[in-house]
Amino acid sequence: MYFMKAVVKDKPERGISVCNMPVPAAGPGEVIIKVRMAGICGTDLHIYNWDDWAKNRVKVPVIIGHEFIGEIVDMGPGVVNLKTGQRVSGEGHITCGHCRYCRNGNAHICQDVKIVGVDRNGCFSEYLCIPASNVWPVRDSIPDKYGTLFDPIGNAMHTVMSQPVNMKAVLITGAGSIGLFAVAITKSNGAARVIVLEPNPYKRELAAKIGADLVIDSSDPGAREKIIDATDGNGPDVLLEMSGHPGALRMGLDLLSNGGTASLLGIPEREVPINVAGDIVFKGITIHGITGRRIFETWYQCESFLLKEGHLIEPVITHKVTLDNIEESFLSMKRGEAVKVLVEVGV
Amino acid sequence: MYFMKAVVKDKPERGISVCNMPVPAAGPGEVIIKVRMAGICGTDLHIYNWDDWAKNRVKVPVIIGHEFIGEIVDMGPGVVNLKTGQRVSGEGHITCGHCRYCRNGNAHICQDVKIVGVDRNGCFSEYLCIPASNVWPVRDSIPDKYGTLFDPIGNAMHTVMSQPVNMKAVLITGAGSIGLFAVAITKSNGAARVIVLEPNPYKRELAAKIGADLVIDSSDPGAREKIIDATDGNGPDVLLEMSGHPGALRMGLDLLSNGGTASLLGIPEREVPINVAGDIVFKGITIHGITGRRIFETWYQCESFLLKEGHLIEPVITHKVTLDNIEESFLSMKRGEAVKVLVEVGV
Amino acid sequence: MYFMKAVVKDKPERGISVCNMPVPAAGPGEVIIKVRMAGICGTDLHIYNWDDWAKNRVKVPVIIGHEFIGEIVDMGPGVVNLKTGQRVSGEGHITCGHCRYCRNGNAHICQDVKIVGVDRNGCFSEYLCIPASNVWPVRDSIPDKYGTLFDPIGNAMHTVMSQPVNMKAVLITGAGSIGLFAVAITKSNGAARVIVLEPNPYKRELAAKIGADLVIDSSDPGAREKIIDATDGNGPDVLLEMSGHPGALRMGLDLLSNGGTASLLGIPEREVPINVAGDIVFKGITIHGITGRRIFETWYQCESFLLKEGHLIEPVITHKVTLDNIEESFLSMKRGEAVKVLVEVGV
Amino acid sequence: MYFMKAVVKDKPERGISVCNMPVPAAGPGEVIIKVRMAGICGTDLHIYNWDDWAKNRVKVPVIIGHEFIGEIVDMGPGVVNLKTGQRVSGEGHITCGHCRYCRNGNAHICQDVKIVGVDRNGCFSEYLCIPASNVWPVRDSIPDKYGTLFDPIGNAMHTVMSQPVNMKAVLITGAGSIGLFAVAITKSNGAARVIVLEPNPYKRELAAKIGADLVIDSSDPGAREKIIDATDGNGPDVLLEMSGHPGALRMGLDLLSNGGTASLLGIPEREVPINVAGDIVFKGITIHGITGRRIFETWYQCESFLLKEGHLIEPVITHKVTLDNIEESFLSMKRGEAVKVLVEVGV
Repeated sequence: MYFMKAVVKDKPERGISVCNMPVPAAGPGEVIIKVRMAGICGTDLHIYNWDDWAKNRVKVPVIIGHEFIGEIVDMGPGVVNLKTGQRVSGEGHITCGHCRYCRNGNAHICQDVKIVGVDRNGCFSEYLCIPASNVWPVRDSIPDKYGTLFDPIGNAMHTVMSQPVNMKAVLITGAGSIGLFAVAITKSNGAARVIVLEPNPYKRELAAKIGADLVIDSSDPGAREKIIDATDGNGPDVLLEMSGHPGALRMGLDLLSNGGTASLLGIPEREVPINVAGDIVFKGITIHGITGRRIFETWYQCESFLLKEGHLIEPVITHKVTLDNIEESFLSMKRGEAVKVLVEVGV
Repeated sequence: MYFMKAVVKDKPERGISVCNMPVPAAGPGEVIIKVRMAGICGTDLHIYNWDDWAKNRVKVPVIIGHEFIGEIVDMGPGVVNLKTGQRVSGEGHITCGHCRYCRNGNAHICQDVKIVGVDRNGCFSEYLCIPASNVWPVRDSIPDKYGTLFDPIGNAMHTVMSQPVNMKAVLITGAGSIGLFAVAITKSNGAARVIVLEPNPYKRELAAKIGADLVIDSSDPGAREKIIDATDGNGPDVLLEMSGHPGALRMGLDLLSNGGTASLLGIPEREVPINVAGDIVFKGITIHGITGRRIFETWYQCESFLLKEGHLIEPVITHKVTLDNIEESFLSMKRGEAVKVLVEVGV
Repeated sequence: MYFMKAVVKDKPERGISVCNMPVPAAGPGEVIIKVRMAGICGTDLHIYNWDDWAKNRVKVPVIIGHEFIGEIVDMGPGVVNLKTGQRVSGEGHITCGHCRYCRNGNAHICQDVKIVGVDRNGCFSEYLCIPASNVWPVRDSIPDKYGTLFDPIGNAMHTVMSQPVNMKAVLITGAGSIGLFAVAITKSNGAARVIVLEPNPYKRELAAKIGADLVIDSSDPGAREKIIDATDGNGPDVLLEMSGHPGALRMGLDLLSNGGTASLLGIPEREVPINVAGDIVFKGITIHGITGRRIFETWYQCESFLLKEGHLIEPVITHKVTLDNIEESFLSMKRGEAVKVLVEVGV
Repeated sequence: MYFMKAVVKDKPERGISVCNMPVPAAGPGEVIIKVRMAGICGTDLHIYNWDDWAKNRVKVPVIIGHEFIGEIVDMGPGVVNLKTGQRVSGEGHITCGHCRYCRNGNAHICQDVKIVGVDRNGCFSEYLCIPASNVWPVRDSIPDKYGTLFDPIGNAMHTVMSQPVNMKAVLITGAGSIGLFAVAITKSNGAARVIVLEPNPYKRELAAKIGADLVIDSSDPGAREKIIDATDGNGPDVLLEMSGHPGALRMGLDLLSNGGTASLLGIPEREVPINVAGDIVFKGITIHGITGRRIFETWYQCESFLLKEGHLIEPVITHKVTLDNIEESFLSMKRGEAVKVLVEVGV
């Protein structure tokens, strides 16, 4: 048995360990990927912190991490259409394939999903094992640093693509990494105006750098009025809620134009009081709940975006680390001093 | 000046008066309709009761009522394409025609709408004046009793047509007149299964009579489980919320299948706490706020429905009264002992 | 090795043979189904006749047939979620799973599809081998005779579901089995009016029996006018072209209302001259090309339809035969004297 | 009575006259606009040439022209929401307002439309009279030269907006003014790749200047292969047919990817033989016929586009003339030596 370095959630408490774990072997229909680069996601932070969600979901020990790029080094029986040496990323949702959502082309809402780095070993390690059907070959002209990020760019893409944004005034609440990707995508897709609401000045600066037309501090008492002014008094046509913050969601729905659409990706911790009559019914708006990415429709869209305008997301990548010093990145992210951190594993 | 009998909200307090009012004259682009039959809507009840909404919106004196059928008896200058003697109903929303919603084909969310029987004189009277562009000619083969109800059937139709219902399991929460119309329309449109949740036994009986596949008492502690059982464990694909009751809305969203759609017509009085993460985001559902009717797309759909299967709505019409005894109908409706009450005005 | 009776296209010329063939064995991910009942499709007739399409596509010898119901009797390694004894039908398009259409949830337009009974052995035999992922479990309350027909009902369903038909006037050109299924589905889904155009009086009679509101002989010189009259002078809102006949397609497009939609399933043998300016551009219509069935979205819709109103299709099933006398059914079908013929294989 | 200079189609033969015509007076609901700038459209050229279409449609004498910007100088009775001095353009389709298309929010396919400059006096004159409801106020920051072109940019916008183009490979056949506007709009809306097919080298150069990723001579025998190569072997996802040329339409449909969409604006003179089976049915594509512009949805989209990226269309404007030398522009356009010609009327 061979061993590899891995970031493991090994105890049911706050923290992680970097230790040696057995290199996985490919079962039927599976591939082994030598990881080159990985990305740290907010989900990893939840597991690190061992919050309520993590306690209920994660069974230790597990290697964490689900955003990656690497190279296929081994393939189990029955794998066709892939080859060793291929540079790939992959969908982290291992969907059941049997439920009516999977069979209907809606695997992103599979009722029995297993998530890489949550429910089974993930990519913060030298080798990763996933089903061949989850593999996504990465085009040569997409550099590793962007190819690593198909998964979270996919969250942003799925959110943006849930309604037309071209010619529309778009409000994005929350400028974490997914919110920032959404700024790049909406700008690239012809939005008339992209407005970002975000409390953290560091993230606001990044939003501006990526091309947001207007960036507003959510603690600014004049925020509401500024958004109304910037939309000719109508309010935004589209709300992309990326923060999970009840106040942002409520303000976004309140401001949304009659007939507007809201796509909600952010995950509030508790129930949110909603003005159903005034903000939904009378305005005739549409709300989309957004989870994961469409498999693989969203991936094709991300590929197209990265081939054409991948450079737009450059500012979102704020740090690079190694497996050994991954823990300090978790702390920086928690303090709001880092956005997307890449982990150089096997470069 | 001629006078006519009319139901007037004449004082800023609970109640109405039946009294004489001047017969209106047609201005440019307007028509005068001799009312034959009218329908009583929940909105009329709000005005009768002089609740908070009514206090803030209605300026007395005003003739109330907005569901009607009648005959054109006079036309102001500039009216073409209509003629006196024509049997007509009409859209009660007088939209501004200038705002971006009106100009975009979304007049039902006009930002400066005036409502017949609320903001200007209505149809509980012998004669009614409305703009010619609001008139809807009624086909000969649609009887008066159904032709009177284009407006509320239109609310139900607009709600149903906001998503496909054919082959779908549909949950309708609230079996007032609009909920009952929705039962008839969804059944007629090929829904796999129509489930109704309603506390009032009288209305539940009507729902069953119209053809609901399963009718459940919302106070039944087993309601939730019955709905899950009736939908193969998936929950309904479509929620049509017609009650405005927070509990019904919350249960409906909770039960809704992954990827489902909810169309909300009911108007909660206060903010409703919503489980945004569990009920919207993770399930990837879509919510439509529904107000009024699409002008006149919904009217064409209602015409088509009434021509083909108008008889389905017969059970919704529970009472007929005259202008003189309209007040007692308000009280019956309030007690949940009447659903749709028709007022015979000039038959 | 065991042998079974099978209908085989064994020579590159007109005709078929009923002979013994080896019982197939299940490879990894495959199942063996003991066929109980099969349906004869127009495709089988093309292969029988050995027309140009068949010559170019089919490699002899091959067992033909792709509409079936049966029972799982064996499963290869790696099959989960199915069990022996299960009553099943199945999708006859073995899609590659790797092309961008398959990965995008559009496997019905897979660029490397293999068809059961065309490109590999089919179901006119005692045993059938297909991939487990193509299997469709049939609900108990759907009888064999309807469960056999998921595939062709699926063609009709896919065509109908490509646009809303509720409240619409629908013209169906061609009342072969798929056209007749479409009559049942459009009626069940709330179409305002279903008009059928068909030259064969026997099929017209079946269309009427299933519930078409108006059935017109396509050789009637007044056909055009009758359709216009039956649609208030507007022409149909929806055209479902099921015949592949150039004249029917041209008349359908010519009659279609402004803003209408046409879904084309019928396969013309040659190019068809189309009045692009008058019939497509100026009328602002939408045309959908329809092939196969959505996998498995359409199957869920068919299940829902069959559970609720399967009896509507009863008249489409005109004959029952056995494997031994299948050839005479081909001749009846060719003469237009049979529509859907069921083959009782292992009942 | 006052007189004004106007370009008049005064005889039923090839040619035009520049002569004096009475200044129009505003009837009820109409406005008088002092024209500042106008644009020459292909339709004007058809009328100039007195081709078959013109002979059948146009009744002489009539002032031609329908693309314009100007200033309101007078308003008839009943006009609200506009004021004299306002800078405006306007929709040239005077729709009936009564037909089911108009009432359904689809006035662009009105069955009784009158066109400015075709069926009633147009804008190649010092003053123009149109209904107030056709007026479109132009934002201050949109310069006259672009504001004049809302109508033809609207044709391009309507075509582009008939399907999503973001992340898609788009083929535009025909680089006349509308095709060129479409290049600018698709690029601005995030198309992955915009390919233009056009025989005229002058127009190809403009297409490249505006930002087409690949511009191909339609007479190049390798055109087909170049398009396939440029789309990873899949063919384009979207075809925007702007030429009306049968060969372009046929090649476009042939190349279109499985599941692709084609929006047809170009108007072939005769029927076009279409490979319905291979190009439409088996590929499962969707075709949209496009006529005019959505009123006023498309105008809002154009406004948004011009406010943000109006400069993109600058290369389309190749010439400026006056009413007096308008005829030579017609000849240049006919020779393919001019694309969009602006007429300075009252600047």
